[in-house]
Amino acid sequence: MVLTKLKMTDCLGDGAGDMTPMDLYEKLTSQGDTVRTLKTEKAAKADIDAAVQLLLKLKVDYKQVTGQDYKTGCPPSECVVSQDNGPAADGEDMVDPWNVSTTNAKGVDYDKLIVRFGSSKIDQELVDRIERVSGQKAHRFLRRGIFFSHRDMHQVLDAYEKNKSFYLYTGRGPSSDALHMGHLIPFIFTKWLQDTFDIPLVIQLTDDEKYLWKDLSLEDCHRYTMENAKDIIACGFDINKTFIFSDLDYMGASPDFYRNVVKVQKHVTFNQVKGIFGFGDSDCIGKIAFPAIQAAPSFSSSFPQIFKGRKDVQCLIPCAIDQDPYFRMTRDVAPRIGYPKPALLHSTFFPALQGAQTKMSASDANSSIFLTDTPKQIKNKVNKHAFSGGKDTVEEHRKYGGNPDVDVSFMYLTFFLEDDEQLEKIRQDYASGALLTGELKKRLIETLQPLITSHQERRKQVTEETVKQFMTPRPLNYSF
Amino acid sequence: MVLTKLKMTDCLGDGAGDMTPMDLYEKLTSQGDTVRTLKTEKAAKADIDAAVQLLLKLKVDYKQVTGQDYKTGCPPSECVVSQDNGPAADGEDMVDPWNVSTTNAKGVDYDKLIVRFGSSKIDQELVDRIERVSGQKAHRFLRRGIFFSHRDMHQVLDAYEKNKSFYLYTGRGPSSDALHMGHLIPFIFTKWLQDTFDIPLVIQLTDDEKYLWKDLSLEDCHRYTMENAKDIIACGFDINKTFIFSDLDYMGASPDFYRNVVKVQKHVTFNQVKGIFGFGDSDCIGKIAFPAIQAAPSFSSSFPQIFKGRKDVQCLIPCAIDQDPYFRMTRDVAPRIGYPKPALLHSTFFPALQGAQTKMSASDANSSIFLTDTPKQIKNKVNKHAFSGGKDTVEEHRKYGGNPDVDVSFMYLTFFLEDDEQLEKIRQDYASGALLTGELKKRLIETLQPLITSHQERRKQVTEETVKQFMTPRPLNYSF
Repeated sequence: MVLTKLKMTDCLGDGAGDMTPMDLYEKLTSQGDTVRTLKTEKAAKADIDAAVQLLLKLKVDYKQVTGQDYKTGCPPSECVVSQDNGPAADGEDMVDPWNVSTTNAKGVDYDKLIVRFGSSKIDQELVDRIERVSGQKAHRFLRRGIFFSHRDMHQVLDAYEKNKSFYLYTGRGPSSDALHMGHLIPFIFTKWLQDTFDIPLVIQLTDDEKYLWKDLSLEDCHRYTMENAKDIIACGFDINKTFIFSDLDYMGASPDFYRNVVKVQKHVTFNQVKGIFGFGDSDCIGKIAFPAIQAAPSFSSSFPQIFKGRKDVQCLIPCAIDQDPYFRMTRDVAPRIGYPKPALLHSTFFPALQGAQTKMSASDANSSIFLTDTPKQIKNKVNKHAFSGGKDTVEEHRKYGGNPDVDVSFMYLTFFLEDDEQLEKIRQDYASGALLTGELKKRLIETLQPLITSHQERRKQVTEETVKQFMTPRPLNYSF
Repeated sequence: MVLTKLKMTDCLGDGAGDMTPMDLYEKLTSQGDTVRTLKTEKAAKADIDAAVQLLLKLKVDYKQVTGQDYKTGCPPSECVVSQDNGPAADGEDMVDPWNVSTTNAKGVDYDKLIVRFGSSKIDQELVDRIERVSGQKAHRFLRRGIFFSHRDMHQVLDAYEKNKSFYLYTGRGPSSDALHMGHLIPFIFTKWLQDTFDIPLVIQLTDDEKYLWKDLSLEDCHRYTMENAKDIIACGFDINKTFIFSDLDYMGASPDFYRNVVKVQKHVTFNQVKGIFGFGDSDCIGKIAFPAIQAAPSFSSSFPQIFKGRKDVQCLIPCAIDQDPYFRMTRDVAPRIGYPKPALLHSTFFPALQGAQTKMSASDANSSIFLTDTPKQIKNKVNKHAFSGGKDTVEEHRKYGGNPDVDVSFMYLTFFLEDDEQLEKIRQDYASGALLTGELKKRLIETLQPLITSHQERRKQVTEETVKQFMTPRPLNYSF
């Protein structure tokens, strides 16, 4: 993978003050429109001349700043890539939609990732504000920094306070294997957001993506979609406010969705997806074009049946941080096709049982707790595979205490144990040595077993008819 | 544009007899399937070992022949590019979907093009056979070599003789400007094929392509589609046998069409479209993925409403030769996704009034006769702009004769004057000097005026309702 180390600021020359290349680009585009309008309306020659003069000056500035000639419909690509960070440098954590790796037992360094991705930290002030605006206690994922990063969340709340509501968009690449607990994180949180803000939600199942990336048939990918939809529905989404869709079906059922896909595809170059996703010349053209399909649900006009043709409804996307490259690209394109940029809330990764160095793999049965596991399997997996931060002997553990920061059982409890005080007591007791590894694991097992069992019961009640209802393009209930 | 000069035969090593890289690739893919099946079915170890040995040997052959490692789903790209000829070398005519140019006043050297593209000449034997099989006199475009090249037409006729019928697919990139006479060539011929063989026809209007390539809005492109559809309908297609569609609409109305688009997109790499179409890194991802959208109508399963889910109906594509690169790509992909290769009939280009060096431009009003021209405009354009093969003075012309081979008026008559004997007499008289340029032009004007006038009358009768009917996905009447 070729690294683009150029920073946004490197693109700035002397002549254009503190305008970014993208600012300049947008100003140029709009000045071009002005000139065209003046000509069409046969305005006074002096007015046209003045407008053309400004246009030419902007073009000179643009060339100076970016080193490129201005071209209509062609944003400052190099700078966009660098602004959107690009791949990790040597020794840094690796995070993109297909790979997550780190050498640190505590997991990825998320503070560094915020700096590299150019997003904003979800700080106590934002958590407090969400509580204030929604009138609800913040979800444990917010209280505990599991959703740790955002883009434009303050803007979403500003608008919400002025009665300008928004909609939620999340998704999943359907896979053959049963979902594991990690897959639930965005859905659990999205459900909380839906309930708290009382807003519509669209869930994209990217069966086309799976087909393009994996050695699977279209039929298999579509079947996994329908199976995965049941697990998603079992998370408790409101059927009157939620639309779940398969790309393979919805693309062929909505001319408006396809129109937005094409709009995005016109405004993103191969150079850009190469920089953002690391695509190469031997990748198939389907992969190269796919990011536009993940981008399109960020725009309310992709769902005319829900938003009645409105193209200005703000979108908020809760997702794991590895999906951010798609939405950096989307946010870059949005203003150029006349749409608001989607806002984002990013989660950390759910650690594998073996430790936080990697994201879990759905293809390794022992790397996680699956939603199909029996209470006995859960118990065995935790006892046998959950990486421990405890000491080698009981004596040492009592004397020096365990390390909850690298202990996977403790990490899992931060995701799933609701009670803050209990969690804090467990942390202290484990660190002091009062709580042994076996006892910690027992707490986790007792927390997970009922969660999974009740998920399984809810999933059993999801009929084909219910799936069909959720997946039918239709109006949703909402009040804005 | 980088030229790939490697020839198909350069890819062949010593070890693999006369197998092409694609043959080897397909054999390897199928052997891989065999091994997987044996393993799944827990076959005898000896059988599995033998199958694996063969697989390994094929991989060695493949590497030797192509210089590449075998990768599932990744065909031998370099060789495919060279087989599909690639761009023109210095001094050769330039022919691709966006550019046609030659330095020869007689126009492009079509015999050379057949060799370079690897297609077959439509010789007298094939013309005779079409007459025999259809029981109709061959269309003047066939009699006069205007449709001059084909792929697999004999195979189509073989099947037709055994009562295995086929369907027709042609199309157009809708443009703002009125259509000119050249645009009608594929449609006039397609109508003749439809009437002669009594078969269904699909006509693709690539408004998405126009949006991606031009500085136009989606709305404009779609409006041009609806306007162009009227001119196409005015050619006299059978409403019970013809489906006309806008990509922007049909992509969002047919999950089966999108599924075929994704299938093609999975099996074509950026390297391949770079070699075939000359795309570069700064092209938008929409252009890069578009060839799959022009490929998809070549497969009958893209139209379940017409072919009731059948995926084996052979497709025949009448088109100008510049569209061939799309279908070379399509024919390469077809067997790998389980579909028959489309057959093709290629036409020469309709010359510009100014001469046969270039294809006409819809944006230069004087470069051609438009379907909206009045009889007076036609007369003036022919008299003023049609490049003449006559001599400078009447005396010289009478003495030396004119040159019909470079005379545009005579070329136009070969396209539009039905009577072979009259045409031959005009040719002889012009060459001998008996017929003057003014008289030749008069013959052309008298031929074109009633053609255009009656087209205009038929177009006036095409109502919005008729357009809607042609463009509604629906069953068609046919007897196979």
